[in-house]
Amino acid sequence: MFYHNKKLQYFTPPEKPDPVYAKKMQELIGGTFGEMTVMMQYLFQGWNCRGPAKYRDMLLDIGTEEIGHVEMLATMIAHLLDKAPIKYQEDGAKDPVVGAVMGGSNPRDVITAAMNPQHAIVSGGGAMPADSVGFPWNGRFIVASGNLLADFRSNLHAESQGLMQAVRLYEMTDDPGVKDHLSFMIARDTMHQNQWLAAIEDLKSEGFEETVVPRVAYEYGKNEFAYQFWNHSEGEESAQGRWAKGPSMDGKGEFQYVANPQPLGPEPQPPQPDPKLHATPQTPQQQDNGADAPPAVRVERIG
Amino acid sequence: MFYHNKKLQYFTPPEKPDPVYAKKMQELIGGTFGEMTVMMQYLFQGWNCRGPAKYRDMLLDIGTEEIGHVEMLATMIAHLLDKAPIKYQEDGAKDPVVGAVMGGSNPRDVITAAMNPQHAIVSGGGAMPADSVGFPWNGRFIVASGNLLADFRSNLHAESQGLMQAVRLYEMTDDPGVKDHLSFMIARDTMHQNQWLAAIEDLKSEGFEETVVPRVAYEYGKNEFAYQFWNHSEGEESAQGRWAKGPSMDGKGEFQYVANPQPLGPEPQPPQPDPKLHATPQTPQQQDNGADAPPAVRVERIG
Amino acid sequence: MFYHNKKLQYFTPPEKPDPVYAKKMQELIGGTFGEMTVMMQYLFQGWNCRGPAKYRDMLLDIGTEEIGHVEMLATMIAHLLDKAPIKYQEDGAKDPVVGAVMGGSNPRDVITAAMNPQHAIVSGGGAMPADSVGFPWNGRFIVASGNLLADFRSNLHAESQGLMQAVRLYEMTDDPGVKDHLSFMIARDTMHQNQWLAAIEDLKSEGFEETVVPRVAYEYGKNEFAYQFWNHSEGEESAQGRWAKGPSMDGKGEFQYVANPQPLGPEPQPPQPDPKLHATPQTPQQQDNGADAPPAVRVERIG
Amino acid sequence: MFYHNKKLQYFTPPEKPDPVYAKKMQELIGGTFGEMTVMMQYLFQGWNCRGPAKYRDMLLDIGTEEIGHVEMLATMIAHLLDKAPIKYQEDGAKDPVVGAVMGGSNPRDVITAAMNPQHAIVSGGGAMPADSVGFPWNGRFIVASGNLLADFRSNLHAESQGLMQAVRLYEMTDDPGVKDHLSFMIARDTMHQNQWLAAIEDLKSEGFEETVVPRVAYEYGKNEFAYQFWNHSEGEESAQGRWAKGPSMDGKGEFQYVANPQPLGPEPQPPQPDPKLHATPQTPQQQDNGADAPPAVRVERIG
Amino acid sequence: MFYHNKKLQYFTPPEKPDPVYAKKMQELIGGTFGEMTVMMQYLFQGWNCRGPAKYRDMLLDIGTEEIGHVEMLATMIAHLLDKAPIKYQEDGAKDPVVGAVMGGSNPRDVITAAMNPQHAIVSGGGAMPADSVGFPWNGRFIVASGNLLADFRSNLHAESQGLMQAVRLYEMTDDPGVKDHLSFMIARDTMHQNQWLAAIEDLKSEGFEETVVPRVAYEYGKNEFAYQFWNHSEGEESAQGRWAKGPSMDGKGEFQYVANPQPLGPEPQPPQPDPKLHATPQTPQQQDNGADAPPAVRVERIG
Amino acid sequence: MFYHNKKLQYFTPPEKPDPVYAKKMQELIGGTFGEMTVMMQYLFQGWNCRGPAKYRDMLLDIGTEEIGHVEMLATMIAHLLDKAPIKYQEDGAKDPVVGAVMGGSNPRDVITAAMNPQHAIVSGGGAMPADSVGFPWNGRFIVASGNLLADFRSNLHAESQGLMQAVRLYEMTDDPGVKDHLSFMIARDTMHQNQWLAAIEDLKSEGFEETVVPRVAYEYGKNEFAYQFWNHSEGEESAQGRWAKGPSMDGKGEFQYVANPQPLGPEPQPPQPDPKLHATPQTPQQQDNGADAPPAVRVERIG
Repeated sequence: MFYHNKKLQYFTPPEKPDPVYAKKMQELIGGTFGEMTVMMQYLFQGWNCRGPAKYRDMLLDIGTEEIGHVEMLATMIAHLLDKAPIKYQEDGAKDPVVGAVMGGSNPRDVITAAMNPQHAIVSGGGAMPADSVGFPWNGRFIVASGNLLADFRSNLHAESQGLMQAVRLYEMTDDPGVKDHLSFMIARDTMHQNQWLAAIEDLKSEGFEETVVPRVAYEYGKNEFAYQFWNHSEGEESAQGRWAKGPSMDGKGEFQYVANPQPLGPEPQPPQPDPKLHATPQTPQQQDNGADAPPAVRVERIG
Repeated sequence: MFYHNKKLQYFTPPEKPDPVYAKKMQELIGGTFGEMTVMMQYLFQGWNCRGPAKYRDMLLDIGTEEIGHVEMLATMIAHLLDKAPIKYQEDGAKDPVVGAVMGGSNPRDVITAAMNPQHAIVSGGGAMPADSVGFPWNGRFIVASGNLLADFRSNLHAESQGLMQAVRLYEMTDDPGVKDHLSFMIARDTMHQNQWLAAIEDLKSEGFEETVVPRVAYEYGKNEFAYQFWNHSEGEESAQGRWAKGPSMDGKGEFQYVANPQPLGPEPQPPQPDPKLHATPQTPQQQDNGADAPPAVRVERIG
Repeated sequence: MFYHNKKLQYFTPPEKPDPVYAKKMQELIGGTFGEMTVMMQYLFQGWNCRGPAKYRDMLLDIGTEEIGHVEMLATMIAHLLDKAPIKYQEDGAKDPVVGAVMGGSNPRDVITAAMNPQHAIVSGGGAMPADSVGFPWNGRFIVASGNLLADFRSNLHAESQGLMQAVRLYEMTDDPGVKDHLSFMIARDTMHQNQWLAAIEDLKSEGFEETVVPRVAYEYGKNEFAYQFWNHSEGEESAQGRWAKGPSMDGKGEFQYVANPQPLGPEPQPPQPDPKLHATPQTPQQQDNGADAPPAVRVERIG
Repeated sequence: MFYHNKKLQYFTPPEKPDPVYAKKMQELIGGTFGEMTVMMQYLFQGWNCRGPAKYRDMLLDIGTEEIGHVEMLATMIAHLLDKAPIKYQEDGAKDPVVGAVMGGSNPRDVITAAMNPQHAIVSGGGAMPADSVGFPWNGRFIVASGNLLADFRSNLHAESQGLMQAVRLYEMTDDPGVKDHLSFMIARDTMHQNQWLAAIEDLKSEGFEETVVPRVAYEYGKNEFAYQFWNHSEGEESAQGRWAKGPSMDGKGEFQYVANPQPLGPEPQPPQPDPKLHATPQTPQQQDNGADAPPAVRVERIG
Repeated sequence: MFYHNKKLQYFTPPEKPDPVYAKKMQELIGGTFGEMTVMMQYLFQGWNCRGPAKYRDMLLDIGTEEIGHVEMLATMIAHLLDKAPIKYQEDGAKDPVVGAVMGGSNPRDVITAAMNPQHAIVSGGGAMPADSVGFPWNGRFIVASGNLLADFRSNLHAESQGLMQAVRLYEMTDDPGVKDHLSFMIARDTMHQNQWLAAIEDLKSEGFEETVVPRVAYEYGKNEFAYQFWNHSEGEESAQGRWAKGPSMDGKGEFQYVANPQPLGPEPQPPQPDPKLHATPQTPQQQDNGADAPPAVRVERIG
Repeated sequence: MFYHNKKLQYFTPPEKPDPVYAKKMQELIGGTFGEMTVMMQYLFQGWNCRGPAKYRDMLLDIGTEEIGHVEMLATMIAHLLDKAPIKYQEDGAKDPVVGAVMGGSNPRDVITAAMNPQHAIVSGGGAMPADSVGFPWNGRFIVASGNLLADFRSNLHAESQGLMQAVRLYEMTDDPGVKDHLSFMIARDTMHQNQWLAAIEDLKSEGFEETVVPRVAYEYGKNEFAYQFWNHSEGEESAQGRWAKGPSMDGKGEFQYVANPQPLGPEPQPPQPDPKLHATPQTPQQQDNGADAPPAVRVERIG
């Protein structure tokens, strides 16, 4: 069960509105690696967690923090959209196609043309659960597999991409308010990268996981192929990396470089199609005799 | 530019068809962490790579290998769908709602009811670029950010989730052919987890990256918040983890546990709405006087 | 900013697992009218709210409550998925296509075939942000327009559809735990329908809105068409409804029934295509002379 | 079965083209609350309607009218896209990145940069079934539940959001043709809001429904929670609304304000994971002993 | 503008309900090649048509016919869903996981488990705008490019895939009502394949188009590569087809078989990344000096 | 199994960067008819092919070629995005809303506002698997039905739309590098249209298919309706086309023009709803007596 405090975790208003930047900042709310993703990913991982209490509690701590990050960004976007110019200027509007050919265009009209139209038409000046091109956030953006090592690696990856994007957006503005606001979020994401690296170490030190997840892979896999790098691309620059030689990262093998990988399987021989499906068979004679044959015959062919 | 060899990288046909398992196995082709994801993710990362040749070459090696993994699985699914029972048995079909109330249902009819209907209606017995519930693979499943550390972490996460799913599917069948086939793929994914861990080490040893990505985060962030764990959830079990105390993973700070986190920001004061947007304002008097006001006035209010 | 309490708002565990029902219950989490929708809809409406404090506060109250409803349902689904049969029984599995033709199918195998495969392969026995056919929740499911009357009507509609679905799911099980759990949620949704009706009344009593939203519609619209019902479908049964006669609901007009509606506009004459676009024009002579004409000419044609 | 009349229900051509406005106007065709939504929603509600003939007839009347509204808007968009500037001007195009640094940009080039590129590349100057950011209309935008009260509330909500958006677009242009055209549509939407309010009254007067839908909710729900407002958010401004005190809207209870809501449920105890799923359990010892255990054992554990 | 006639174009009710078949039949309503696709595709092509009146009229004729096809199928699905068993039988329901181990499963319960749950929970026994796995129809399924030859080829393809799917569904049932109903639709699709072939001939005979569309391709393309088949796959079976030798289909060239295709381009040299984007560069020294450099410098580097 | 050659099939770098054109060119990578579509469509058709070896080999040849086309375009987009202006110019940035009212806007700022923001924020200057409005490529864009005639028609349609789009983009730029690059792709698409026409002829000459696909349609369809054109739209211009008179294209019938088509079916009578679904019935008395009735009764009503 959840509670809300009216104050924001952190906030600095922008010095002035910037509707085009508001469009771009939506990436941090509803993009693949936006705050809705980490919020939902951590909450679902917490709710689905069967492991020790410290992991579940930690996941719900950070998931709950992230709800507040969506809130902070939604507030920022409302400020950036303030007084967005939703209509061409009087004079410019007279001829939007050719405009005043002898003069330049009005910068205000550039914004009218380039802002996310849904920020005016749909949300009335508010944030939306969508990314910087208006594509909606969706549930396939998150993962909660039940296995904490796999999931903490997902979390580390999400925080790495997310911090990268926050930094890029930081570079894309000169507004001191926006920059101050983002610098708080950048610090929290710095913590979160540290946090997931620590959590991965914690899992291992508690004896839950080793390098490769899940551990049972060694039992099921053909281990003779588990340390080979296959060179599918012309040229052998890839032989120079750590992945091509030396002990494997799990300490259980030695990396090998396979310079000329060869197929180990046969040419595919997919079975001939059921006549009822009218797919093209080997020969025309096999085709379109699909009018209801007695199913007994077909069952016989299976055995 | 690419070339194709008709033989498969590896293949063992199933001992017998199993259309319901074919539905489930689609997860490994078109699911969030299926082979289409890693294939496209590595190819786009390779094509977008501006770093040293060994990374670009390696990305295109593994991306090209993964095209062949989609091929292997597509072939397997064609075999599993062989002779799929697309229609109820003669007798059972007489009354599909109540069936033979005194007897049990026909197992063949269970398959008819539960298989992915598109495997018959749409693909005519072939694999599809979709997951185990028929949701199509899409481009938001991949990431290629240009930053190799962020991307290699994404790759490690994708291979971790993907291997987990392959292992789960391995457990969900007794067919020796399918199990043999999957055991090859499990070994390759074991390699790939090792590979991305090695690649991360390689990047660092070459001087490209440190622990937190991107490095400039320290320059932009409010570092006083970069090592605090905020306890947003009742209870302090989360204080027991590695993330709550001791030196931070990047070696630049000390983890702190904030047991009672307090908001640092104010209550939000989003600006009053533009009358033209007909959003609800503070008081009724502000509303619906939106009939075209001269834009000059509005510009004045901005300055 | 948000806080989490470890206890659930309400909970009764199911008497026994039921993985197929778990698949169906996902509709209440991630369906169009599931709890993720109302949670996100109310939170975004609250964050975007510029109206009096009581509305903003109320929206954030209920939005925060709904986060806990997702939590309750996620917990329920984890219980329903307990010991889900992810593999055919030993004997049944021997021949999944034809099975034991002389005997019936194993009910456990029906579940293996019909449950949502991602509940095993992807989430490892946990809830997912998706609906009952596995389609992911997405941001286009919610609306936050800034206008509170329009939005409260959206909320009333969402709670009406949502309560209908909860009631249908209540009817679809005999498990006393699930029924008890749902009966709490049914009561809360009963409140929420009452709440939005009350909020609509409140808005009007405060002077914010009238019947038709936004009020300015009367100023902009051709009001001669604002009270006519057009009978586009053969037969005049539709003349018998309240919408076809009597004073209009906004008290500003009288409903009229137009039995034989006629077009008021001309036949469309869309302009001839730009030759550069190679769309088919009126005559073949106009076609494919699109090789780069001087743009000056085109501009001239615009003026 | 349907018939088409070549004339449009209403139409006024734009005074001049405006490709950026064409992009924005797509919201009214293919947006969440565009004409495709109401067209499909009313048609499906009509086709699925089992209630009295007057409702079915009325739904098909309005659904059929709405097909013509899509037609009107598609025609308008074709006019707005006439002579869209698909290429930078000769001089401006010489250096699209820096342009003439000493001069301003060409307004025509702003349009070239900001219009929906698919209006040129994909549709050749025609309307598309997508919204103002190019996101395609989809079937999850509509609802047809079979229950007419729930559905008429959905219709009222769709017409409220839709009219709001039409009014916003009306404000976003000065073109007299577009304004005249929209003013017809605004009048029809005014009718449609009235119509659904009337239809709701009609349903109740015929004895089909009461305030809360479905009526059986009272029978199934824990009614002691059916009139409580829970204050999940700090501060009690929400106590001042109609929803917090006085008789409930359904006349069956009294609103109560719960200022400090407390959880009624326990801490979640989701069951330990199946070892075959390799989710993280309570202790490391429980992990990865998942190699095929005899299913009989697992069945025993279920009983 | 459109009108509706209450009678159906054609209809035969099913002999008995079949909820699982209803799920499958949804493919014909909302699948990629379902009736919603052809309806919307023809209507948008008609609305966007600038060519001679006979084409526009014909497109709107068939588009209007297809609205009625959606109506016919929606009615059929309502019948097939009649009395769908939405709950396990009393006895079977007692233990849905293991069931009566000694007996077989109830066929009615198979249907309860395998039907589309949204047919009960969401639509209340009615059709939905979705396909056979519940994925919603969307606007990217259609094409209306403005060029009639390109579009008539799209129409031929859609009718070919659609008729194939109707025939497959015809084979998947024994219900005489459904078969009779489908046999009408199969005949109409037979007409429609003929119709688009005729329309393609008509376009050419009127002088609008030739073999390759758009005609201007010859003017813009490097014609030396316009008749070569490149053998990218090991083995030369592909040399045996009509596409590998003889005059080209457009009569303007001779097919050539390139047995060992070689790259004509260089190795890619994508430009080094902007430091502000923090992508990985050639050498570590280039990295993370991204703190705001004066833009003048960057502009200089462009020139 | 696949191999990669580092060189590109063809490539000419652009004369200068153009980030807005890069946004538009994404249509050729990830749009409905982009190279990802043909690549995946041909590969899946090849993998699913059960027909003679020459077809399978040919499909894999061209599918493999198309992977290289995605590669070429990804490289082009990286060049076009070089030095993309991700931030407003120093001075312009001072007041992004009103700008220098007396002067024109900076062309560089137009690009900053109008480019795809994800090209900076998400991909760091690289191509993405998405179209020109940022919508992701998805698996529903392709078709592989198993029937080669149906699929070759799909391929012809995809190449026709794709070539049209490439030609439109060719017209939308003056950059000689981009034009040269596209002219190679235009030639390959010219080949591919020829190729699929040849493949269709080849299939027929081998005896696999005739005009209408699948052939069995004549056996199942009501052939009396298989050659009629129904005039659903007012006016009879559509009588003037080849589709309205003369022998049908399959040589098996004579086209007929039905000027006044009449319904052949009855008014729909969808069955009354199950009370458990709470859909609105014919009369209020039938409603909401849905509390658990014994299922035996319902089963009886089915028989």
